[in-house]
Amino acid sequence: MSDKSLFLEDCARIRSKAPLVHNITNFVAMNMSANALLAIGASPIMSFCPDEMTDIVSGSSSLAVNLGCLDSQLVKAARIAAATALQAGKPWVLDPVGTGASGLRNRISTDLALNYHPTVIRANAGEIMALATLMGFDGSTVKADAAIRGVDSAVDTAQARESAAFLARVTGAIVSMSGATDIVTDGENSTAIEGGSPLMPRVTAMGCTATAITAAFLAVQGDPFTAAIEAMELMARAGSAAAHDCPGTGTFAIRFIDELSKI
Amino acid sequence: MSDKSLFLEDCARIRSKAPLVHNITNFVAMNMSANALLAIGASPIMSFCPDEMTDIVSGSSSLAVNLGCLDSQLVKAARIAAATALQAGKPWVLDPVGTGASGLRNRISTDLALNYHPTVIRANAGEIMALATLMGFDGSTVKADAAIRGVDSAVDTAQARESAAFLARVTGAIVSMSGATDIVTDGENSTAIEGGSPLMPRVTAMGCTATAITAAFLAVQGDPFTAAIEAMELMARAGSAAAHDCPGTGTFAIRFIDELSKI
Amino acid sequence: MSDKSLFLEDCARIRSKAPLVHNITNFVAMNMSANALLAIGASPIMSFCPDEMTDIVSGSSSLAVNLGCLDSQLVKAARIAAATALQAGKPWVLDPVGTGASGLRNRISTDLALNYHPTVIRANAGEIMALATLMGFDGSTVKADAAIRGVDSAVDTAQARESAAFLARVTGAIVSMSGATDIVTDGENSTAIEGGSPLMPRVTAMGCTATAITAAFLAVQGDPFTAAIEAMELMARAGSAAAHDCPGTGTFAIRFIDELSKI
Repeated sequence: MSDKSLFLEDCARIRSKAPLVHNITNFVAMNMSANALLAIGASPIMSFCPDEMTDIVSGSSSLAVNLGCLDSQLVKAARIAAATALQAGKPWVLDPVGTGASGLRNRISTDLALNYHPTVIRANAGEIMALATLMGFDGSTVKADAAIRGVDSAVDTAQARESAAFLARVTGAIVSMSGATDIVTDGENSTAIEGGSPLMPRVTAMGCTATAITAAFLAVQGDPFTAAIEAMELMARAGSAAAHDCPGTGTFAIRFIDELSKI
Repeated sequence: MSDKSLFLEDCARIRSKAPLVHNITNFVAMNMSANALLAIGASPIMSFCPDEMTDIVSGSSSLAVNLGCLDSQLVKAARIAAATALQAGKPWVLDPVGTGASGLRNRISTDLALNYHPTVIRANAGEIMALATLMGFDGSTVKADAAIRGVDSAVDTAQARESAAFLARVTGAIVSMSGATDIVTDGENSTAIEGGSPLMPRVTAMGCTATAITAAFLAVQGDPFTAAIEAMELMARAGSAAAHDCPGTGTFAIRFIDELSKI
Repeated sequence: MSDKSLFLEDCARIRSKAPLVHNITNFVAMNMSANALLAIGASPIMSFCPDEMTDIVSGSSSLAVNLGCLDSQLVKAARIAAATALQAGKPWVLDPVGTGASGLRNRISTDLALNYHPTVIRANAGEIMALATLMGFDGSTVKADAAIRGVDSAVDTAQARESAAFLARVTGAIVSMSGATDIVTDGENSTAIEGGSPLMPRVTAMGCTATAITAAFLAVQGDPFTAAIEAMELMARAGSAAAHDCPGTGTFAIRFIDELSKI
């Protein structure tokens, strides 16, 4: 659990600074991620054109890279953006969507996680388990190809705890793993975040939105472990509040944005 | 009208099996289609990257291909995906969006419908009429180029009934035609589905969502004629319920997802 | 302020004629823009495939080109579409999203604005200021690179009034500039539109939606100055009504579409 007054302070800092958060993300999540960032007071930009990546990342406070819809241009943009962020010392978040679901995703996720030094890797338990296995972890509680079904996790975060710690140690990134209980780890220490709602995995792009929000906290909070926890805590709070007396998943998604805009 | 207990059984089967449904679809519809699939309990994946099509389709239970936003990469992915599904004996749905609106769409729709043997073709009446005419049907009730305005139908399903039956016979696919009255036909027999709401054509991506839901039913119901009817019945039920006392088309779209999530 | 009865007449004309409005737009805005056009009674089509641009534009009543997510194919499609519209004498709107945020955007916006003769240029104050500076205007109230933060304006419309007038005179387009107070100018005369809500810039794709709605009015109203004003007036009315007792930005976006669908 993060420090409550620091959490609220960092939320207020996002609203007052309105950091420019650059997102390379998939076409399913773009609209929701942009609205979530605007709701919390950040300023989103969503380009994936390689020819302007250096300009855009140079002008941004942080970067989120999400591999939901792979596209050769998007992958090229992701590499330029990550390299630019790295060189400029700007924080960036990798969301290796669907790692385990195709050989292509496995190759690109591994390359970005190992060679471009993400500040935070945010993913579900199945993706974390698949990525750790690809990097040589052999202590998985389930077989790697059973960890993921498409882009949805087939395991819970407790089962992937060791995979997450391994991944953090190998890459040097903070690993932020979402599920019924979220777990954030630096490889040695870990924090669990409770809350949220069972409706969250029934709305598309919730994970992608958590990634975008993590990038927003990284823009105002210099400690990435703290920033990752704060982002998941905000997700959990908004999710719990939105689920109250909710008639269905369509309304839940809208109320979730409402809750973000009220914090 | 489908058998009511079988319909509810197949809805329950989608929820218990959570079939992985792969969607190659347009950028307008991606978010809504993914949310509709999650709402009914299926697990959506939305990739259109040619390099991972074989992996993704091999791991999926069924496939939906929607030509809403043509893009050379998307078309390449569609051909690989359809060929993979065909070879593996997996059901797939073709949604020939905007056939009649451009020469390019005419060529690609015809190619996919004739050479890749879709299990179901789902479209509006104008698209069905345009596609049947392109395949040599000469009994259209209106001139082919008057059947469609952009991606919206300019004719009703009753006018396109003969076109639909012709198309089913020529392609071997079940044809599922949406409109105020939906018609599903195998070329010999046809079933009409009533219900829904006049608000449905006033929300974008409703047809694309019907296509995605058809693919979900195909994943659990081996008879494609039955699966196509069940999908349109679910659309009609959710549409009717969502329209009740509805303040406008924005709220209608959200309530429609709510209704899907409650079945 | 536009003439009230003419405004209502033109709204009714959109509903009765259901003009086909072609949109080349970004992936964040596609769904909302399509729903906004359907809500007011127009028929949207959202293709960006170069190979069908001539066919699609030839069949449409008007065109909107939005540079939100640059992509080489989209830019190629935009040039073909604009050239086709110009040759056929069809009105078209340019939305130079993020001009000032990258060299690439600066080059493409300038090229389209100068060489393809848009009927209307619709943008926020920062984009207008950046574009005018790129075309040689030296009377900016702030430095060009301080006018824009990502895709959000860092200046208000009053500060960009002279830039807008300059841009209108250089390009021959009507310039429609959105902000707390919207300003429409032909370079000599200008009209201010009040109303709307501070929630509007906190929802993504609102500007893109204004662009699409401007294209719809251009399809039924031969005077582009009037059409541009009517579009911003409709935005302002729907925005004010939607903001009433609104619990947050998620609900606001939905109610905004509801309001459009009720006019």
